[in-house]
Amino acid sequence: TVDSSALAWAANTQIGGYGELHFNRDLGGGGDNTVDFHRWVLFLNHSFSDRIKLYSEFELEHSLAGDGAPGEVELEQAYIDFTLDHGLNAKAGLFLLPLGLLNETHEPDTFFGVERNRVESNIIPTTWWEAGVGATQTLDNGLGWDLAIHSGLNLPTSGSNAFRIRSGRQKVAEAAAEDPAVTARVRYNGVPGLSLSAFAQYQNDVTQTTSDEDNSAFLVGGTAVYQAGGFGLKALIASWNIDGQSFEDNGADHQWGGYLEPSYTWTIGTDQRLGVFARYSHYEYARGIGNVGGGTFDQYDVGVNYWPIDNVVLKADYSHIVDEDDEVESLLNLGVGYSF
Amino acid sequence: TVDSSALAWAANTQIGGYGELHFNRDLGGGGDNTVDFHRWVLFLNHSFSDRIKLYSEFELEHSLAGDGAPGEVELEQAYIDFTLDHGLNAKAGLFLLPLGLLNETHEPDTFFGVERNRVESNIIPTTWWEAGVGATQTLDNGLGWDLAIHSGLNLPTSGSNAFRIRSGRQKVAEAAAEDPAVTARVRYNGVPGLSLSAFAQYQNDVTQTTSDEDNSAFLVGGTAVYQAGGFGLKALIASWNIDGQSFEDNGADHQWGGYLEPSYTWTIGTDQRLGVFARYSHYEYARGIGNVGGGTFDQYDVGVNYWPIDNVVLKADYSHIVDEDDEVESLLNLGVGYSF
Amino acid sequence: TVDSSALAWAANTQIGGYGELHFNRDLGGGGDNTVDFHRWVLFLNHSFSDRIKLYSEFELEHSLAGDGAPGEVELEQAYIDFTLDHGLNAKAGLFLLPLGLLNETHEPDTFFGVERNRVESNIIPTTWWEAGVGATQTLDNGLGWDLAIHSGLNLPTSGSNAFRIRSGRQKVAEAAAEDPAVTARVRYNGVPGLSLSAFAQYQNDVTQTTSDEDNSAFLVGGTAVYQAGGFGLKALIASWNIDGQSFEDNGADHQWGGYLEPSYTWTIGTDQRLGVFARYSHYEYARGIGNVGGGTFDQYDVGVNYWPIDNVVLKADYSHIVDEDDEVESLLNLGVGYSF
Repeated sequence: TVDSSALAWAANTQIGGYGELHFNRDLGGGGDNTVDFHRWVLFLNHSFSDRIKLYSEFELEHSLAGDGAPGEVELEQAYIDFTLDHGLNAKAGLFLLPLGLLNETHEPDTFFGVERNRVESNIIPTTWWEAGVGATQTLDNGLGWDLAIHSGLNLPTSGSNAFRIRSGRQKVAEAAAEDPAVTARVRYNGVPGLSLSAFAQYQNDVTQTTSDEDNSAFLVGGTAVYQAGGFGLKALIASWNIDGQSFEDNGADHQWGGYLEPSYTWTIGTDQRLGVFARYSHYEYARGIGNVGGGTFDQYDVGVNYWPIDNVVLKADYSHIVDEDDEVESLLNLGVGYSF
Repeated sequence: TVDSSALAWAANTQIGGYGELHFNRDLGGGGDNTVDFHRWVLFLNHSFSDRIKLYSEFELEHSLAGDGAPGEVELEQAYIDFTLDHGLNAKAGLFLLPLGLLNETHEPDTFFGVERNRVESNIIPTTWWEAGVGATQTLDNGLGWDLAIHSGLNLPTSGSNAFRIRSGRQKVAEAAAEDPAVTARVRYNGVPGLSLSAFAQYQNDVTQTTSDEDNSAFLVGGTAVYQAGGFGLKALIASWNIDGQSFEDNGADHQWGGYLEPSYTWTIGTDQRLGVFARYSHYEYARGIGNVGGGTFDQYDVGVNYWPIDNVVLKADYSHIVDEDDEVESLLNLGVGYSF
Repeated sequence: TVDSSALAWAANTQIGGYGELHFNRDLGGGGDNTVDFHRWVLFLNHSFSDRIKLYSEFELEHSLAGDGAPGEVELEQAYIDFTLDHGLNAKAGLFLLPLGLLNETHEPDTFFGVERNRVESNIIPTTWWEAGVGATQTLDNGLGWDLAIHSGLNLPTSGSNAFRIRSGRQKVAEAAAEDPAVTARVRYNGVPGLSLSAFAQYQNDVTQTTSDEDNSAFLVGGTAVYQAGGFGLKALIASWNIDGQSFEDNGADHQWGGYLEPSYTWTIGTDQRLGVFARYSHYEYARGIGNVGGGTFDQYDVGVNYWPIDNVVLKADYSHIVDEDDEVESLLNLGVGYSF
């Protein structure tokens, strides 16, 4: 038999994780095939009391990190959460910003498609964490809100990633903290099967410099999720407006995108599920100087998820992406993922 | 008393680990001494059900990883295992290939010698993991087999590690996946104390290029382990044949090695064990261009393992290595290791 | 209900951790603000038996590690501890040296001030771990001692960090082990509320070269901690003497420092605590060649710690630092930390 006093630590500390392995095949002329264990995650949480808890998330990206290696080790969450009264929580530390659909919940078994959708990756930009303080409240009537004051983006204005939102993330790693940002969200899930949110963020200077140019930035967006039996529908829109002549000159003052994703999921026997989805996305983001990654895109995805059991998923999908010059990228993706 | 519902996570999730600290003394003219915490490992496993389980292994090599640091963070295993009927298992994800003696089981308390033997390091090449799918079956009569289709090697054909098997490992980190490989093994342990295996692998092009040269590669090998009371014997042989003019021109078309390792282990009191071993190894592997690491070697090892308790080991050994020019390398190694 | 056999692993393996997020504001002309998740730590410990245990500590510094990233992954502890009789323990592996106040116990909730004090960082130099063997004994009368033989410093004698103690740490990462060091400490806590220690270290050559110059190094120091009700007092002194003309020529032959830290802590209700502290520090360490970091400093700190519960802390402090040229650095620091 097991000594229960030796188990006391495990009553207050919890371990979890998730992971996803991706195979990507470029169906175009290049024809490159790549296999990558994109993300391996360890969750380490602790309850200091019923009301004070730590949530932390440690991640190895691309399977191999070190000098000259392609991957990276990241701390994506590490914050202390304080449960107050009236459904109110406060937090301090490093946390995921309350924006979009994937940013806070991105375990691979929770979404369709092998890769995260490019609207949230390039526009939100998911996965996005910052350091600061925040408050959250969920009311009995299904309304809720989130508010956070936190470190902000630090967008490059030169180089191959210039003016790109995603490249402004500093990941709380010896990060410039000259210009904080504020994020707010309201949520409503008072109707069974329906979840709605609207979110906004403001930062006074997304380049964090003392230059004369005013680079204030404003993000607004919204999400809708509807589930009725096997039928599901997800929709998201997000849009940045950034002031400043340099952003305007480079076509980076307005960066936005949205997607619509219908799906249908069948339950097979007691444990298994099979789902099919389609997704139409449109997104426009900064090209930067000499960067062929940015531009204006229409993307069409179709694919299938198979869950042999809850929290384990096998995925396959096909992507057809058309840019502003009608150049086409075609991708076949396969994936294995899990979370616990 | 401990709240049992708070412990539910620990009934399905398991943590383990291993580690090994090495001290290496070059007894030759150079006389360098090095101390290195070679490997620190975290196992993170989870049971999604009685039949569906995750196995994952996260490793920090050389104690320190980052820009300019000598070490590396690696994901060595992360796969979903499905238990089917009739002793059959299937798996998908990133896994250790079923080859040799050390590749799948390399905890320091399970083998003699501070460092892993150079035959398996350079020829197999251990530790070797790939991404793919596999199946395994173990029958009641002691027979078993393993089969896997997985991402393959990507051998460099220029530079200081040209034509070297070990340097072809991509570690599933944004890895080229143009040419998959297939690995097969049969096992037999129907006689008490005896374990035998034979294994093979084939890959159509180990350079993963579109060049005209045919660089197909074929690995064959076998292992034998015998234990009778304190007496143990381990033997391994592994041999690569690689097609292509460039491999032939550089003497890298045939790379092979083998070793024979007798040992004797005493049990001391109830918990402790003391073992002595000798090992003779012969191995030939690609020199590459300007690489002094490759060549043809005879190696003689003797040493001792002391286990103060199961799963903890203190080690000492002496290595005498002679290359094809009769140049001699003499090494003294000390080690501390553990696993759980 | 939970299957107790599935929990057996958790009775022998324990997980813990700590973390600290820092905000640093330079109040001088430069005026830079930085936010950094300075340290995220995972403890992984295991009991092989009542007398044989593993302690290990894995750390991600600066939130992000990899090629081109500011952070680092480190193994700070990984050793096997053997409990012998008469209060005696022996250990082998990678361990924190028994020196100073912070080196072995540096969880953020255990000390005042957001950043670790610069005396211990630059002189001891904390956090300092090496590989080797050690022994520890604690007697019933409050006396205790520690002795360790371990890998030593490897001080650079050129470059921007020349002659700097802190830069001599090799972190057991493929580390030169030509010249071991020996560390000894005596402890006394036989009077309630009082803890005293004296420590010393000797290394025959802190540059680990074969040059003719004798670079033997000798560290001596002591600590005192007194707690009476809410009032606390900590004091530390540490001093290096290093032989050799090159150290003498660069003013690096004597590097030393000390601090005195009075504090007062109130308990609020049942769980919370609030503490205030002041600290005066003086330290002198090697400038090196072209390094503006070294020099002679007087530092004055004042600040506050608030513990909403044991093991969680919010911190704020102000630092005023004057160098030998009367140049002043003023810093405001905010922090969040936890341990478990």
